[in-house]
Amino acid sequence: MSDSREQILEQIKEQGDLVRQLKGAKESKEKLAEPGGVRARSTIEKAQPQQQEQQNQHEPQQQQQIQEQQQQQAQINKIDEEVARLLALKAQLGGDAAPTSQKFTLKTPKGTRDYAPQQMTLRQGVLDKIVQVFKRHGGEAIDTPVFELKEVLTGKYGEDSKLIYDLKDQGGEILSMRYDLTVPLARYLAMNKISSIKRYHIAKVYRRDNPAMTRGRYREFYQCDFDIAGTYDPMLADAECVKIVAEILDTLEIGDYVIKLNHRQLLDGMFEACGVPAESFRAICSAVDKLDKSPWADVRKEMVTEKGLDEATAEMIGEYVRLSGGTELVEQLLADPKLKAVPNAVKGLEGMQLLLKYCSIFGLDKRVSFDLSLARGLDYYTGVIYEGVLKAEPSSRSPAKSPQQNGETAEQATVGSVAGGGRYDNLVGMFDTRGKAVPCVGVSIGVERIFAVLEARFAASKVKLRTNDVEAYVASAHKGLHEQRLRVLNQLWDAGIKAEHSYKLNPKLLVQLQHCEEHQIPLVVVLGDAELAQGLVKLREVTTRQETSVKLEDLPGEIRRRQQA
Amino acid sequence: MSDSREQILEQIKEQGDLVRQLKGAKESKEKLAEPGGVRARSTIEKAQPQQQEQQNQHEPQQQQQIQEQQQQQAQINKIDEEVARLLALKAQLGGDAAPTSQKFTLKTPKGTRDYAPQQMTLRQGVLDKIVQVFKRHGGEAIDTPVFELKEVLTGKYGEDSKLIYDLKDQGGEILSMRYDLTVPLARYLAMNKISSIKRYHIAKVYRRDNPAMTRGRYREFYQCDFDIAGTYDPMLADAECVKIVAEILDTLEIGDYVIKLNHRQLLDGMFEACGVPAESFRAICSAVDKLDKSPWADVRKEMVTEKGLDEATAEMIGEYVRLSGGTELVEQLLADPKLKAVPNAVKGLEGMQLLLKYCSIFGLDKRVSFDLSLARGLDYYTGVIYEGVLKAEPSSRSPAKSPQQNGETAEQATVGSVAGGGRYDNLVGMFDTRGKAVPCVGVSIGVERIFAVLEARFAASKVKLRTNDVEAYVASAHKGLHEQRLRVLNQLWDAGIKAEHSYKLNPKLLVQLQHCEEHQIPLVVVLGDAELAQGLVKLREVTTRQETSVKLEDLPGEIRRRQQA
Repeated sequence: MSDSREQILEQIKEQGDLVRQLKGAKESKEKLAEPGGVRARSTIEKAQPQQQEQQNQHEPQQQQQIQEQQQQQAQINKIDEEVARLLALKAQLGGDAAPTSQKFTLKTPKGTRDYAPQQMTLRQGVLDKIVQVFKRHGGEAIDTPVFELKEVLTGKYGEDSKLIYDLKDQGGEILSMRYDLTVPLARYLAMNKISSIKRYHIAKVYRRDNPAMTRGRYREFYQCDFDIAGTYDPMLADAECVKIVAEILDTLEIGDYVIKLNHRQLLDGMFEACGVPAESFRAICSAVDKLDKSPWADVRKEMVTEKGLDEATAEMIGEYVRLSGGTELVEQLLADPKLKAVPNAVKGLEGMQLLLKYCSIFGLDKRVSFDLSLARGLDYYTGVIYEGVLKAEPSSRSPAKSPQQNGETAEQATVGSVAGGGRYDNLVGMFDTRGKAVPCVGVSIGVERIFAVLEARFAASKVKLRTNDVEAYVASAHKGLHEQRLRVLNQLWDAGIKAEHSYKLNPKLLVQLQHCEEHQIPLVVVLGDAELAQGLVKLREVTTRQETSVKLEDLPGEIRRRQQA
Repeated sequence: MSDSREQILEQIKEQGDLVRQLKGAKESKEKLAEPGGVRARSTIEKAQPQQQEQQNQHEPQQQQQIQEQQQQQAQINKIDEEVARLLALKAQLGGDAAPTSQKFTLKTPKGTRDYAPQQMTLRQGVLDKIVQVFKRHGGEAIDTPVFELKEVLTGKYGEDSKLIYDLKDQGGEILSMRYDLTVPLARYLAMNKISSIKRYHIAKVYRRDNPAMTRGRYREFYQCDFDIAGTYDPMLADAECVKIVAEILDTLEIGDYVIKLNHRQLLDGMFEACGVPAESFRAICSAVDKLDKSPWADVRKEMVTEKGLDEATAEMIGEYVRLSGGTELVEQLLADPKLKAVPNAVKGLEGMQLLLKYCSIFGLDKRVSFDLSLARGLDYYTGVIYEGVLKAEPSSRSPAKSPQQNGETAEQATVGSVAGGGRYDNLVGMFDTRGKAVPCVGVSIGVERIFAVLEARFAASKVKLRTNDVEAYVASAHKGLHEQRLRVLNQLWDAGIKAEHSYKLNPKLLVQLQHCEEHQIPLVVVLGDAELAQGLVKLREVTTRQETSVKLEDLPGEIRRRQQA
């Protein structure tokens, strides 16, 4: 490298003036091109519709202006590239040249993170277990693009719509990043006229939230969704989704949990029974949803002062949302004079009764809790809703709190929601031109929080996860053996054995052995001229340091045998 | 549902005026908020810097204006949401109500696609095999966010920078979607001060290209990258990357291929020898890169008319880029009077000599071809470059073409690039504040084109891939058995067996058996009252239609045995 430095230096000297020239030109052009800049002002006023509509709808005059603007932009881009290229050329000097290209803080975007190999190993382990459960229930995988036409997402998320990431209008379609995997599924089903599927989808979703990253909340995060679409008999698919949540939380062994169950029809019926005006159902539902983070007093205040409920109604709701239990609670509520007068409430309660029965058959009696405070934020739910919540570990940060009896304060003893879902029978119909509905029920596993719990546990245990699967490391005992190493490696790779070596011609044996210890590689093949002359190599076990001589042609077989032992 | 319809209708009637009112208010507000709109004109002139710099750099006056603008936007969002909510409410009516919410074409964004279960099965199979090879070479996985700070991507892609997707400025950081996985890796290494790693990364990347989707080119597509970072001895890591390409293309069995090799130092040296001015090296390199799609005449024209090369120089380049071969070609060129006078050319050729030697040890003599027409588009390569290219199948669409001898026309007999990469020693240094370099070499597998080839093959073979892994379907022989089915299913799931059933209470037996045939499920557990009374079920093999009675408690074990047989 270093002898091409003079050449580069010379180039830079020659082109120094050019850079300054180009930069000057660029700056003055940028001024021109800025919205609100000297000349662009009039252009933009007329070119604006381009951002709202298709390109082919413009008048000739506007098109000309747009073309001019585009040409201008192309010129600026070209200058940008030229400057960047020259800066890169300058950066090639490395060492003694002052680095000028890197003026910004090196970070990932707010609310996102990289996954290092240790974290990836943990993550892949979790995702594999989840997929295993999804497949155990007959799930098929699908995938959709990371962004959708903006219109697909519009009007699906209620108050949360403001959290959607939009893409810049660079000409063409207006796009947004997916907010969840449910709306893309509904779009997929309507677009392909699919009326039944049992699909899973594991992918990242995007929300411009202000997340608490220490608790495993991010702006870019994985969701693992399983949904059953199709016109079926009540609660059979719904109960299976609850079973899936339980199987996943069991197999991940992340601690004790409860799956809260409720029903949107019951919530609506209960609101009706309490005297909430119909048009406020979703807003009040949204307030109830906050009960897992805020005390009742705050929620009550929101209902009365922000959402205009009278105090007596709020109090009545407060009485109901304190309740949680099992089938006995369903029966108690079916006998409740206020509720039994409201058809929606009765339907919801009958649904709960059937769901609890099926859950019982699935062995989930101790795992599920019918909980009237569960509301779920999203607008699109129409039936059963559920949420898997981790209970605080015995050694929780708030040991002062004793076990609680009633719904409201028991919330505070829980760590957080790690799974949630419900029935949404009308979402697919919103995409169908004839409004044809495809009833759906599904569940989404909040794996980021699960990762966070498991990462914390691993950090505490000081166990180091293996991040590679290398079975054998090929080492040189002395100098001049790198071609021999390549030959042995090639033999191992061709036999399907995971193997690596140092990329140095003459690495020290000690350094090579240390690499194996650090990376938990179990076997080392040590090459030396004396053994090689006899067609032999040494096979060394890293933990025991035992060495055996092995014939070169037997090496793959011997490594296989050791791996199976 | 239908009895809540009246209620909804009433709400809509009540709120009809409100919608009109809100829409009117929205439209007039949008006019105000448009850049170039009545009042925003002055606001934007001053608020513009927000898009270029951090938020905390604003003057108080500007901040106030920004706040006003944000409030205005918040109001518009609120109105949008309200309108959307009301439309959604209207859509809930379904059936007889005119659907008004769905006015746009239901599609995925341009250049993207959904993956249906069949395609996912194929894709997962390909990715699994690729990961297997990466792990065989000691690769560790990492992951990075789908978007980066825009500055991270700036100045890395030369002419292709215009293809980067930008996110809309919604306040906060300016972000762009990743264009490849290489620049994010370099950012990751510099940010975390990592000086050596062998990592793989499988993820989607984004390019606003005008892709030919039939040939497996998309705007959203998977890349599978393997890179070796670290300061090592020449060509050891480089040769392993070439070996990895060969192993992957072998294991995927997608047909005959060649891995073309070249060296950027040789290219630069060759340009120098031909008399290309140093500042035109990258531009001429970019022109040479088009040789795999365009004939020499077109490339020559680009060099002369667009890039200002004199004709004699272009002709000389033309002579060189026609050459391809093996070590004998390296020796021929090392003896070439023009080239041996240029240090860069000699270095490049010596590098090629060593690479070809290592490739030979790896058994790749018949797979690699030293090819002077290979240039690779991206700016950041500094050493070896390579590209895996599928050869046309014997039954290709252009049978008129006879086997070609020279480099130029042999290109036309190839189907397309499915892997590519090279050495980039300066990219990480561009991110390091002190310019500290981390030499890297890597390879990217173009899996979309591989998917396309395999999809076409499957479509032709008419083999239907299984998209689920269900081992046993639990069926009712007659009515009233749904709870029994749930009990048996629960027993199977708890034993880890993949099982499903109909979500209908009383499905017809024939329908259930047809489902198994269509979905290639091998076993059916048939429940009937008579057998259940004796603690028995029938186990039926779908292909042979053979039935055996099995004790209920032995069922999981018996299914396991059948699966292993």
